[in-house]
Amino acid sequence: MHEHLIKQISYFIQLSAEEKEWITEKFVPREYKKGDYFLREGQVCREIGFIYSGLVRYVVIKENGEEMTVDFDKEMFYTGNYASLLDKSPSGTSIQCIEPTTLLVISYDDLQDFYTHIAEGQKFGRMICEVLYVKAIKKVHSLYSKQPEQRYLHFLDTYADLVPRLPQYYISSFVGVQPPSLSRIRKRLSK
Amino acid sequence: MHEHLIKQISYFIQLSAEEKEWITEKFVPREYKKGDYFLREGQVCREIGFIYSGLVRYVVIKENGEEMTVDFDKEMFYTGNYASLLDKSPSGTSIQCIEPTTLLVISYDDLQDFYTHIAEGQKFGRMICEVLYVKAIKKVHSLYSKQPEQRYLHFLDTYADLVPRLPQYYISSFVGVQPPSLSRIRKRLSK
Repeated sequence: MHEHLIKQISYFIQLSAEEKEWITEKFVPREYKKGDYFLREGQVCREIGFIYSGLVRYVVIKENGEEMTVDFDKEMFYTGNYASLLDKSPSGTSIQCIEPTTLLVISYDDLQDFYTHIAEGQKFGRMICEVLYVKAIKKVHSLYSKQPEQRYLHFLDTYADLVPRLPQYYISSFVGVQPPSLSRIRKRLSK
Repeated sequence: MHEHLIKQISYFIQLSAEEKEWITEKFVPREYKKGDYFLREGQVCREIGFIYSGLVRYVVIKENGEEMTVDFDKEMFYTGNYASLLDKSPSGTSIQCIEPTTLLVISYDDLQDFYTHIAEGQKFGRMICEVLYVKAIKKVHSLYSKQPEQRYLHFLDTYADLVPRLPQYYISSFVGVQPPSLSRIRKRLSK
């Protein structure tokens, strides 16, 4: 199970045998059923999970109580609320497993040790944060400037393999429209 | 001039005398007049600027040609398009100086050297990227779930000192409404 995690980290940095062992010890497997929450809105996020298998969605609740699905993460990437983790503030987001999901979980303290114990730990932290940041800032610009149809096309580009794994109403929420509007967009595009 | 930059970096990491000299050599001062662009949409971003003095806005153009002001950065922080810098892709954003602005500019290559030449360079890169990421992801969630009035209140919280430095139509664009709607929100809140 940990070999997937070690492979993911090794995309970015070199790991010694001792470091691989350290990682295997610190990232603890945890199972979630479909529908379980890794984090609920209002809780402080105290750990980060590497998704060994499964799929999570990020949920924010609007003032009127409506749930919005704002992002997804799947196997071979990480999940957690970094903002809440860093400043120990209550999370504004829930993270729900929308398939049976296996995570390898590391605590905040062990993550800080990772940065110093692993020779290239800081470099890994920088590079993975760059990936997260670029994804987030592109999303900001898209929400400001793109029409729902363009956002849907971008969704298809980025998350093509997720389409059969997601209910339509998660996709319409992510695109920022009501489900009937997404149906109209899909009909228009299929012509 | 470089003492401001060194102070900013020293919030995060320790710098030796030799490292301070290296930084002073690599970050080159450049002056911009009000209205000048640091980066234009379609260009590849090849450098990052530390804002010694002044103020920049980030601009995206909608399909209908309308300009949207999507963010600001001011003195004692950085500017650039990290997504474009990292993958050498054309920038989807313009960066315009909206006051006379002095930047200390470092090239992509020198920035990579920074990470390796400075003992705690990777740590600095990680921590500054965390700041950027947390800001971006909070913005994503706000655009999905908050009403314009809440976004305006958040703007006032975050950018209180910028209010007298910004034209109203930049603020309304940032909040995501037309200028008359912002006027109505301000009237309602002033009651």
